[in-house]
Amino acid sequence: MKRSIICLIFLGCLLGNMAAESGYELWLRYRLVDDMSLLDNYRKLNAVCYFPKTTSEQASAAKAELFRGMEGLLGKLPAETSAPDGGTLWIGVSHVLFPSGDIPFGEKVRALNEEGYLIWSGRLNGKQRVVVTALTDRGLLYGVFHYLRLMQTRQSLDDLCVVENPKLKYRMLNHWDNLDGTVERGYAGYSLWNWERLPFYKETRYTDYARANASIGINGIVLNNVNAQAKSLRRDWLVKASGLADAFRPYGIRVYLTAKFSAPKELGGLDTANPKDSRVRAWWKEKVEEIYSIIPDFGGFLVKANSEGQPGPQDYGCTHADGANMLGEALEPYGGVVFWRAFVYQNERHVDRVVTGYNEFKPLDGQFRKNVFVQPKNGPIDFQPREPFHPLFGGMPRTPLALEFQITQENLGHAGHLVYLGTLYEETLQSDTYACGQGSTVSKVLQDYQRTHGISAIAGVPNVGTDLNWTGHLFGQANWYAFGRLAWNPDMCAMTIAEEWVRMTFSNTQEVLNPILKLMAMSRETYVNYTMPLGLNHIMNYATHNGPEPWHDDPVWTAFDYHKVTTDSIGVDRTDGGSGATGQYHTPVCDRFNSLRTCPESYLLWFHRLPWDYRLASGKTLWDELVSHYYKGVAEVGQMKNIWHSLEGKIDLERYNQVASLLEYQEREAMWWRDGCVLFFQQYSQRPLPEGCQPPAHDLKYYQSIPFPYDWKGYYD
Amino acid sequence: MKRSIICLIFLGCLLGNMAAESGYELWLRYRLVDDMSLLDNYRKLNAVCYFPKTTSEQASAAKAELFRGMEGLLGKLPAETSAPDGGTLWIGVSHVLFPSGDIPFGEKVRALNEEGYLIWSGRLNGKQRVVVTALTDRGLLYGVFHYLRLMQTRQSLDDLCVVENPKLKYRMLNHWDNLDGTVERGYAGYSLWNWERLPFYKETRYTDYARANASIGINGIVLNNVNAQAKSLRRDWLVKASGLADAFRPYGIRVYLTAKFSAPKELGGLDTANPKDSRVRAWWKEKVEEIYSIIPDFGGFLVKANSEGQPGPQDYGCTHADGANMLGEALEPYGGVVFWRAFVYQNERHVDRVVTGYNEFKPLDGQFRKNVFVQPKNGPIDFQPREPFHPLFGGMPRTPLALEFQITQENLGHAGHLVYLGTLYEETLQSDTYACGQGSTVSKVLQDYQRTHGISAIAGVPNVGTDLNWTGHLFGQANWYAFGRLAWNPDMCAMTIAEEWVRMTFSNTQEVLNPILKLMAMSRETYVNYTMPLGLNHIMNYATHNGPEPWHDDPVWTAFDYHKVTTDSIGVDRTDGGSGATGQYHTPVCDRFNSLRTCPESYLLWFHRLPWDYRLASGKTLWDELVSHYYKGVAEVGQMKNIWHSLEGKIDLERYNQVASLLEYQEREAMWWRDGCVLFFQQYSQRPLPEGCQPPAHDLKYYQSIPFPYDWKGYYD
Repeated sequence: MKRSIICLIFLGCLLGNMAAESGYELWLRYRLVDDMSLLDNYRKLNAVCYFPKTTSEQASAAKAELFRGMEGLLGKLPAETSAPDGGTLWIGVSHVLFPSGDIPFGEKVRALNEEGYLIWSGRLNGKQRVVVTALTDRGLLYGVFHYLRLMQTRQSLDDLCVVENPKLKYRMLNHWDNLDGTVERGYAGYSLWNWERLPFYKETRYTDYARANASIGINGIVLNNVNAQAKSLRRDWLVKASGLADAFRPYGIRVYLTAKFSAPKELGGLDTANPKDSRVRAWWKEKVEEIYSIIPDFGGFLVKANSEGQPGPQDYGCTHADGANMLGEALEPYGGVVFWRAFVYQNERHVDRVVTGYNEFKPLDGQFRKNVFVQPKNGPIDFQPREPFHPLFGGMPRTPLALEFQITQENLGHAGHLVYLGTLYEETLQSDTYACGQGSTVSKVLQDYQRTHGISAIAGVPNVGTDLNWTGHLFGQANWYAFGRLAWNPDMCAMTIAEEWVRMTFSNTQEVLNPILKLMAMSRETYVNYTMPLGLNHIMNYATHNGPEPWHDDPVWTAFDYHKVTTDSIGVDRTDGGSGATGQYHTPVCDRFNSLRTCPESYLLWFHRLPWDYRLASGKTLWDELVSHYYKGVAEVGQMKNIWHSLEGKIDLERYNQVASLLEYQEREAMWWRDGCVLFFQQYSQRPLPEGCQPPAHDLKYYQSIPFPYDWKGYYD
Repeated sequence: MKRSIICLIFLGCLLGNMAAESGYELWLRYRLVDDMSLLDNYRKLNAVCYFPKTTSEQASAAKAELFRGMEGLLGKLPAETSAPDGGTLWIGVSHVLFPSGDIPFGEKVRALNEEGYLIWSGRLNGKQRVVVTALTDRGLLYGVFHYLRLMQTRQSLDDLCVVENPKLKYRMLNHWDNLDGTVERGYAGYSLWNWERLPFYKETRYTDYARANASIGINGIVLNNVNAQAKSLRRDWLVKASGLADAFRPYGIRVYLTAKFSAPKELGGLDTANPKDSRVRAWWKEKVEEIYSIIPDFGGFLVKANSEGQPGPQDYGCTHADGANMLGEALEPYGGVVFWRAFVYQNERHVDRVVTGYNEFKPLDGQFRKNVFVQPKNGPIDFQPREPFHPLFGGMPRTPLALEFQITQENLGHAGHLVYLGTLYEETLQSDTYACGQGSTVSKVLQDYQRTHGISAIAGVPNVGTDLNWTGHLFGQANWYAFGRLAWNPDMCAMTIAEEWVRMTFSNTQEVLNPILKLMAMSRETYVNYTMPLGLNHIMNYATHNGPEPWHDDPVWTAFDYHKVTTDSIGVDRTDGGSGATGQYHTPVCDRFNSLRTCPESYLLWFHRLPWDYRLASGKTLWDELVSHYYKGVAEVGQMKNIWHSLEGKIDLERYNQVASLLEYQEREAMWWRDGCVLFFQQYSQRPLPEGCQPPAHDLKYYQSIPFPYDWKGYYD
């Protein structure tokens, strides 16, 4: 009787868990292991924990996470012991666990760097044990998250010998959060930072955010927008920022700020921000000293200068290197670094945007101080659904580059479309630059800076906000996760990462795992198909960057610069005979893009301008192929819906419904993209739709007049 | 062995629950009943549930909540039966539960109105049973929440006979949410409405918000700000609003919108919004028809007209009644109502704001259509920490009035200060207007309209937003809860409500309950003491309405109109000899306020202008008394801190820390208020601080120059 009550309570608790799948827990969703034999095994190995006492915040965070994870995954807390011999699980830095230095796996430990860790299991001192160790508490923290992940993803804990060092040193999130709480290009609510109550009141979310980031190895967060306000450097704002630094420190995360280049004028009362002016240099040095007095482990600055209206050194006839080096000099005594963005876009017409970043920065190679990164975006335009890799990668051997990815889906359907970006990241990272012969992938280029310059970096613009599930779209969580995992190891396979995420977020059963992975694998190509196929780009809505607007045409920004559509042809000639963008790549990439014969069709209209009747590999004309891609994209969203529907009853109703309703939304927007673009281009091609393509429900005017926010009800009905 | 594992799992689940006290669950925090004998009893009575099948959304919501609650509180779901005889718990509308009409407690059932319910327990058909019944599914829903509350607060379920009907018909929340996602005077993040994704994507929070509101009887939500945008009435926005209506409907909540008076011009292309123009009247009728075609159970309009720059009927020489009646006429065929705000503030100098609302609306008494409410705020100025009741209550017998309270703490420390507003609400509601002799409390005035006009209403401006705990300050939840409970029954005791809330939110143990109740009971008077004691008002910061600014002085708004401080005196003469505000109240209230001898000291400077050496009941001079209040307020915050600290280890660490850190913050701001005000007034009184009052740490200039957001670090150290 009593026992059955307990059973019922147990069930109740499980059901209770089932009921609360809001997505808030992210992938740190420690649910009881449902495989009984595995559970028994995990419990045995985790029965008694030897975790030597420490006063370190980071070790305490590691321990708290370990116990939290165990409690959920194993349904019980391990016993604790202060005697090593009693422990089945040993966790601690190596010089405490093995004070004599005599370690059976000593060689492995010696291979660790300050953030690395070792997870080992086997017979030790006459007993079966698991050891999680590292040189530092930070490494230990990462090791604990990895150890929990092994159980979350139902791996065996027998005969482990996991040695992990991060392959890049600075693994950054660049928040585009404004100080008024809005987030530029954010689609998941508002900024997580509650500036009004900082530094005193630390929201629960700060810690949960730090936990999530530490679990994937993020170690730096830029708090505010690259379109900066000088006041973020004012003393009272620095004090507020110190509250976030305090919340993140136990999780190995440093805070960084953007630096508005004109701050010496706005805050310092100077009449110039000229980097060659000694008063300006002195102002920055004093400011940096002040920052470190308030935030002793401050990370450094991220700067957007002379781009989209931001002030910069060119205002004074100086170079980007002059500007960056001034800040680098101020930060150097404290170990801080500068991330200087290579995205320099001046809203000028008649200049091919694709070539400007390279042309601006390539000549400066070697002129930057050793604590300065130049930070290009992944591609040469601006976070389009598909871009070839930025030619600066492989083009600046003497300057450490940080690669900037966007996790927020500015041009990928905001938080309304299911698009797994892991595959996009992988596509860039595994692109071969041939900078030092075959195999010089973008990933290798980034990693090599560690050897040549002692520093290396990658940055992501996050997709998080105040939404209960953090990212608006539940699958946005996967993009955050994937970015972090690739920041740790840029050579990981995107679908391996996806599998980890699905296992931790949804289920380890094949009937859930396989369909979701299929969905994720196809999602990005699907998005490209219904928005900007065959290398088309930058034809999205001017204001929102969502929805089609190939017809946008004003003096500041015309989509016609990007598609150059006429009755004869479409696409931009960026070959040797055109703007010469292909020439910015090393041979043989250069030749491959330059020649119509070898240029991948996915970049066709990016590099080439072609007549409507040009024949593609399929044998179809360019027009027919273009239209087919648009229709294929919409059909694929239909397939994605079907795949998702197959999960009904296999996952919790709450998350099932969330995603199902967004897939409906996505399908409508996909049709809007398709019909708007096809009708627009048809005005020029003056060709019929290929056979089998059902004509759009409305005329072009209709699609051009859809207001924001869109009235979808009654549309396609 | 197995059994102990299960026990551990059980503990694990409990611990798991303990770990997640973010505050998101509000008072619907269904934790296992920890009193074993009570738990046994509850389980016995809830063992088998007879809940006749129904297709109603509201009954389904009731059932889902019942089962969710049981699962948490009792750790098990009840068995279900379709045979009444087998059920220990009967839940259903009365004509289904008792089709023959032969009910032992039939008289009680006949006393129910369409939202009322009966909870009865005893022997029925030969067995001990609990019955929850109502005339409608909506009543049933409210009954289920009440039934769960009985268990949440550990009441006996034996011999129950709870008969509840709401005492007011329209129990409204007035969201001041802008369409861009910001919230006017909101301090808990941003708007809950995700307009971009509506109507398709329904966030989890919509349902949880509806649940919380239904649990306290809220039945109407105005979605958008009284400072309105016409576009909320545009078709595409109405379609979006319908998504929220769909989400709220199962919980008995209707949606309302604000109506911008100039909408016929802005949306309809007319050249006027004159309520006497037939085209304008026709436009509103058509618009209302359109609204009901999209939202069939639309509630009606809330209007702010000719106030703070909003357009209104006076722009055309018409009266408020003319404007309101036009909208009332359009809504009448559909059963909709109009709430017409009596807060008419024109930023004029040399007019006493305290008398304007009454003077504007009193002459219109009896001129409004029967589906129009006039809606004054609780007091005649503007949601100050303490105001006497608005003289329109008791002053407009022929016009149904809705009372507007603020739940958001615009002038009560935002979400940074712990201030329980239940006592403020009670103070207003229990104020005796003497409109029909003694006992004509504001509460009775509101309720009487139900008898005289068939409608009655109350409204609250909520304090909710995207913050994980909904209200920013955890104790803000109590104010939302208290408003709802008082909307259902305006004669409830504020501290009874507080006890319910603490029991459901924190704990039923006396060692937790008593200190928290003590804290809540003292909190509002404490706030008054350190900000605006003795009837002072409207001396807060001009822009933020937080922090002191008695020195604010510009042509639009000068604090000097409100305190009129000079070297001789302070306060505003609003007696017969002054602006005559006292004369707007019925005898004897009028006389009590008018005479210095009887005017409560808490309203002293509200109604009277007095010399600095005026002697109060304490024997102290006005100056000394004023200063003592300020110092007392700060000392009381210290006491509140001590009380809270006594809870360490008795509640979860997460919520303990949240509140503890905000009390620190509150103490600093209390000192800022005290020191800023005392130094400012001292310039005029030119008197020393009373003995024992430590002088402020800085000079007045310092307090006057504190920027927003404030740099508190290094302050008072």
